[in-house]
Parts: sequence; C-alpha cells; structure tokens
Amino acid sequence: MSLIKPQTLKGFRDYLPQTMLARESLIETARQVYRSYGFSPIDTPAREYSEILLGKGGDESDKQLFRFQDQGDRDVAMRFDLTVPFARYAAQHINEIGVPFKRYHIGTVWRAEKPQRGRFREFMQCDFDTIGTDSATSDIETLFVIHDLFEQLGFTKFTVRVNHRQLLNGLLETIGLADESARVLRALDKLAKIGRDAVAAEIQESAGATPEQAAGVLDFAALEGDPATVLQQVESLLGGNERGMAGVVVLRDLFAAAAHAGLPAERIALDVSIARGLDYYTGTIYETFLGDLPQIGSVCSGGRYDNLAGLFTKQPLPGVGASLGLDRLLAAMEELGLLTEAQTPAPVLIVQFDESRVSDYLRIGRVLRAAGIGTEVFPQSRPLKKQLQYADRKGFRVALIAGEREFADRVWQVKDLRAKSQETVGEDALIASIAAILGG
Amino acid sequence: MSLIKPQTLKGFRDYLPQTMLARESLIETARQVYRSYGFSPIDTPAREYSEILLGKGGDESDKQLFRFQDQGDRDVAMRFDLTVPFARYAAQHINEIGVPFKRYHIGTVWRAEKPQRGRFREFMQCDFDTIGTDSATSDIETLFVIHDLFEQLGFTKFTVRVNHRQLLNGLLETIGLADESARVLRALDKLAKIGRDAVAAEIQESAGATPEQAAGVLDFAALEGDPATVLQQVESLLGGNERGMAGVVVLRDLFAAAAHAGLPAERIALDVSIARGLDYYTGTIYETFLGDLPQIGSVCSGGRYDNLAGLFTKQPLPGVGASLGLDRLLAAMEELGLLTEAQTPAPVLIVQFDESRVSDYLRIGRVLRAAGIGTEVFPQSRPLKKQLQYADRKGFRVALIAGEREFADRVWQVKDLRAKSQETVGEDALIASIAAILGG
Repeated sequence: MSLIKPQTLKGFRDYLPQTMLARESLIETARQVYRSYGFSPIDTPAREYSEILLGKGGDESDKQLFRFQDQGDRDVAMRFDLTVPFARYAAQHINEIGVPFKRYHIGTVWRAEKPQRGRFREFMQCDFDTIGTDSATSDIETLFVIHDLFEQLGFTKFTVRVNHRQLLNGLLETIGLADESARVLRALDKLAKIGRDAVAAEIQESAGATPEQAAGVLDFAALEGDPATVLQQVESLLGGNERGMAGVVVLRDLFAAAAHAGLPAERIALDVSIARGLDYYTGTIYETFLGDLPQIGSVCSGGRYDNLAGLFTKQPLPGVGASLGLDRLLAAMEELGLLTEAQTPAPVLIVQFDESRVSDYLRIGRVLRAAGIGTEVFPQSRPLKKQLQYADRKGFRVALIAGEREFADRVWQVKDLRAKSQETVGEDALIASIAAILGG
Repeated sequence: MSLIKPQTLKGFRDYLPQTMLARESLIETARQVYRSYGFSPIDTPAREYSEILLGKGGDESDKQLFRFQDQGDRDVAMRFDLTVPFARYAAQHINEIGVPFKRYHIGTVWRAEKPQRGRFREFMQCDFDTIGTDSATSDIETLFVIHDLFEQLGFTKFTVRVNHRQLLNGLLETIGLADESARVLRALDKLAKIGRDAVAAEIQESAGATPEQAAGVLDFAALEGDPATVLQQVESLLGGNERGMAGVVVLRDLFAAAAHAGLPAERIALDVSIARGLDYYTGTIYETFLGDLPQIGSVCSGGRYDNLAGLFTKQPLPGVGASLGLDRLLAAMEELGLLTEAQTPAPVLIVQFDESRVSDYLRIGRVLRAAGIGTEVFPQSRPLKKQLQYADRKGFRVALIAGEREFADRVWQVKDLRAKSQETVGEDALIASIAAILGG
C-alpha cells in the first residue's frame, strides 16, 4: 500500500510541545489578566457569511479572505480577525449581554496572505474590549491592562506608547488643513522611512499645504519628552481648538491616573506621531514595544473607536480595546531566549525499573499529583539508561527510581537531573524532597 | 445605509460569557489533569489536504467533510476530528518528538452534519493519547486519567466502563465464528434497542451462525458483576483461547492496579458488551457515563489501537487514548444545574460613585488584583442603583462604594451582594473583609 505524504498546507504549521507549552502559558497569563479586570470570555464561529466579514468595501480584506461556497451554496469565509465577528456578535446579542460589556476573545484567524518568514495564514489573536461606553475611565483601564499583561508575562523593559487621534485633527483644524487629515496621515506614516523633508514635500503636494502648514504638522509630530511637557506644548500649538483640547484632557487624566496607581513612568510614553490606521480609531491609541526587541514592532495595539457595529445595528456602540499579537510575541520571546527548553509539563518521571511493580509506580504517581506535583510514569520496562535519556531529552527535573530493595526499605532513589545528584529518601519525605529540588 | 443582518451560519453558534466561562473551566481542568500525567500540548492546522483527512475510502467521513478548493486550487478540507491530524503529525515529526510520546490536543473540529438539537457543525474535542508503546501500563494510566478528570471536574457519581476487544474475538474463535466478528459486532450493537431474541436471529442470519453459537455470544455479552468474577467466567468460556486470555490478563492487571491506587471500585466497571467501532480499536476500550445522566451516552471514550499512522508511515505506532466530549459534557452540566450563574470572572465591582475619584478607584482595583482578587471598576459615573443592578445581573459577589466621606475617613462601604449586607471597612482591612465574603 502506498503511503500518503504527511505534510501541512503552505502557510500553515504544526505546534510541537515546546512551542505549544509557551503558547499556552502566554494565553493563560493573558486570560488571567483580562479576567482580573472583569473581562468575560466569548467565542464566535470560525466561519461567517462573507457579507458579514466583507462589510462595505474593504478591498484589502477581500484579497486576504479565505472565501468559498459551502455545501449549501452559501457564500462563506473564515474570520480574518476577531473585531468584525465581535461587531456582528454585539449587534446580534446586545439585549442579552447589555452595556457596558467587557469581553476578551482568544481565537484563531485565517488570512490568505502570501506566507513569509514568521507570518502564517493561520494565527491566534487575543483581544479585549470594553464597549457601550465613551467614558475615559475605560481608556485608562485599557492602558492598565496592557501594562499588567506585559508585567505578568515577565517583561521588565517595555513601553506602551499612547496617543490621541484628536490631537493631530485639532492641530489640522487650527492650521487650516482639517479636510486633509487622511492625506497628511498617510504622509506622516512614512516619517521614519523617508525623513522630514520628503514628508514635508508630500504633504504640500498631496494635501495642497503651504510650506508653513507642512512645517506646523512636522513640528507637532516631532514633539517628544515627558507627557506633561509635551501636552503643554501641544496645548500651545492648538491655540484653544476644542477638538484637540478634548484629547489633551483625556491624555492628562490618563498619565495622572497611571502615576497615581504606581505604573512605572518609564513604561508609559506619549508619542504624538502614532496614528494606527486611518479610519477606525477616533480617540486614544496604544502601541507596545519590547525594550530588548523594539524592531519587531508593536506587540499589543489598540485604541478607542466611536462605533463598533454600525454595519449591523443602529445602536451606537463606542468602545476601546487592544489586541495582543500572540504569535509575534512568541517569536520575540524565542529570539530573546525567554522560552523554557522543557518539552513536558510534568517535572517528575517515575522510572519503570521493575515491571512487576507497575501498580506501585502508578499509585505513587497519583499520590504526587494529589500534592500538586506533575508526574509521568515511564510506560515501558526498558533499560534504566534509556529511560534517563528520555528524561533528559524531555526536560524532566526529577527522576524517581525504586526496585525490590527500595520497596523493602520503603525508600526511593531521588535523582536531581539538573544538579546530577541522587539521594535515598524515605517514602514519608518524598514529597518534601521533590519540592525542595523544584524550588518549593 | 442599509444594515447587514447579524447572524451566524446554520449549525454554528456564538458563546455567551456564561457558557464560555463554563467551557473555559472544563478545558482548564482537562488541561491540568492531562499535564499532571505528563501529556504535552500540541496543535495542528484547522485545514489539511483532503487526501490526508479522507485516508483510504471512508464514505461516512467523506460526507461529513467541509471540503473545498482553496485559492491555490488545492483540494483542502477542515479537520473533522483530532485523530487523523495526529496520525499525520506523528508520522511527519516522529524524529523530533520520539517515542513514547504523550500528547493532548484541545481543538475545534468541523463536520458538515445535519444540525440537530445539541449537535453543531463546529465543536471542540479534547483528546489525550500515549503512542509508541504497546505496554499495558499505558492502558491502566488511561483509565486513571479518565477517572481523575471526572473527579477533578467535580463529579462524584460516574462510571468508567472498560472492556477489551480480544475477549469477544477470542470467544468467537473458541466457538468457531472467528471470521464473522464484524457482523456479530454489528448485531450486538443493537442489543439494548431490539433485545436478545432479535439479535440472536440477526447473528444466525447475517453471520450464518447456529442457534448454539448465537446463544454463546449472547451469554457472553450478558455477563455482569464484579470484574474478578466476570473475568473468571470469561476465562471458562474462552476454554484456553490465547487471544482472549491476553485480554483477560490486561483487564485483571488494570482492575488490580486501580484498586491498589485507591480508585473507588464503584466508579470502574467491566462491561464485556461494549465495542466502540469496528476497525480502529484493537485492545482495551473505555466509555464514561454520568451517574445522574446516563442517557446522554458516553462523555469520554477511547481505547487501544495497533497502529495510529499506517497511512502515512511504515513505522508502527501503537497507542492508547481517549477523547473528552466537551460540548456534550457542557450540555449535561447545564441540564444538571452544575453551571454557575455568573457572567463575570471577577467577583468584585468597584462602583464609580464620584467621578472625580476615578483614579482612586482604578488604583485600588490594582491593589486588589495584586492580592489575587479579580476586580472590575464600573466604567461610567451612573446612579448607584443602576450600577448595583449591573452588579446583580452579572453575578458579582461584592460591591465596593466610596465617596468623599469615605475617602476622608479612609474607609470603604463593602456590600455583600448575596447576603445583601453592608459594612464599613477600614482601607487596611479591605482585602481581608472581601476574602471573608468570598469564602477565604
């Protein structure tokens, strides 16, 4: 019989235990942080009617959509993010869920992108949002969640960069470019890449701005320093513009609340140059960069929007939230050497030393598990050396060995696989001995 | 602008927070139990080449497959279980993962079934397997895992029914029906539905058996009682048949090991009548029934197989494992009233009583979270009554209220929302007071 070649589709991948243990640990931390703030989990189907995912227009998403006719000849597609399904969900269930509504959603999404190194056609998103309120309390809380998330993930050096979309909009009103914000933003987006002069030229060309107007925009975008000072400078540039000042007030409250709650100042920055997409966000904006790997870009981004579900309901649903780039973060942690080497979630291996004692090995395994110590019993009777090789390869911390003599004396040989030391321990002291090796 | 109707596809559904909290809790328990035995997590893509999922033939799976041409004109399909992807995965990565290999896989699968009450086209499976060994140690351990899983899920009344495929095969050899096992099994499968006489007739008709042969099969299938006694009776019926006796030995060791490890005898039963599919399983078989809801059928089933991945590799990979029917179990727990009413994962709500104190509410929220107490800050300034209604509707346990007077006195009003009592608590005693209400 000929064999079928075992392979995954292009752009898709398997997760081996080591990566999967890291992914589960990331997800578990995100879940705990979201939950601790009162965000509830939801889920939606992997596929939706195409019209729901396509919305009105959206050329780019169209291209990236995995879209097909299903068995019932329906035009369907795989979800390409968790935001559009959430909009549909909120509109459909608003009477059951009520507002304000805080949800997190950890799920797989699919995009028919050209596969590149580190970019796959199937990946996980990890979103949280508060909808049904335009209160700035939620803007502040969103910052807290992002901060606590990275702190709990074990990062000490990271920066959440915050901005407010209305600062620039207000400035454009003040200097007479109110109708050109899309073109100005598009030009500003290239600042890091093409430099100040080229951006100034583009603003003049595409937005019909004078050299003075272009300089005004670029002076604004170049502001940096501690938030209070920058906001003072922004206030002067705004010349009393109401729209811009509303953003200034939100950001002042946000930085004050962050300081009041004890968030380290060096982790929260004001960056008036970030924009994050042209249309969707309308207020506060967040991006998060790792201190040791800023070049991979923002690993957690989000912002405030005026209306989540306008395509599906007339009820306005303002909100604010952010999305953790789970796979990008995993790749970053791998690059930074932050992933553990272990391929097993259990630290203890009981060696199958004497086949006639299997039921004792299995019994003691349950005793250790009841004490909270993950324990694998090697399933076969094989040479001790082979079993210890298996233990090393998988990354077990402790091996337990007992044969007839040990059973007669009611003791175990406890092997610390990192320290490469071994001691004889009485059955009564076994748990304490293992706990000591595992670091309590 | 006309609205798009917010709806899910037929046979697909959204998860609201209450159900999702229960689902996450089930998954978390399963994950903890699997990990405690040393099973590692893996994941595979949602879609595969169709030839991989179709294998050789398999009419029925063909019908249930969500299959389509992708953008690259590849013939692809959504995974309909986690077993076939695991077979492909094991064959593809065997040099990296090595054997024995213990994995769990919690993932969504899709089937183009006709939707029925409680059956959806998208659902989750929760599998664990040990492959690369034919040692009976793994058969015993599989039983332990199933037992501990249901114990940890909070069930006290449940039964894991165990059988071994070779008992019946051995009996059929003994009584001269060795070549008819498929037909005999198909008839026996109807025993509960059509009764002994009708099954006897069918065995005679379809398998060409004599009335004595049919009676022999039915006498065997009717054996029940304590495992040791039944295995003794099976041994007599087998008349020394080698194949059957191999199964008897495995089951004797299994029941002895279960007793030795302290598994309650009433939770483990020998049921020589269960078969679980005709071809795949070759050894020990497991089914699990809830004491309070046996009629929903087995909620965790599995068994031993000779070769997982014969379609993809020449390396034989025997194994044993089981699958938790997550959605069936969720439905059962809902029916039994075992799901919590809460729609929030956080027990504490801080009322936004005085808008000018938002940064204090947010600060104290972080203090409580740091003490392990999930805390939501109500995002808006609204009338106290409305905020308390929100707290009740969501199922919060505690509401914290403070206005100018409380801030001046450094106290909080702590409201126990179940006991409907309230007390004034000094800031220093706040955590202890909440912990007392939450039950320590």
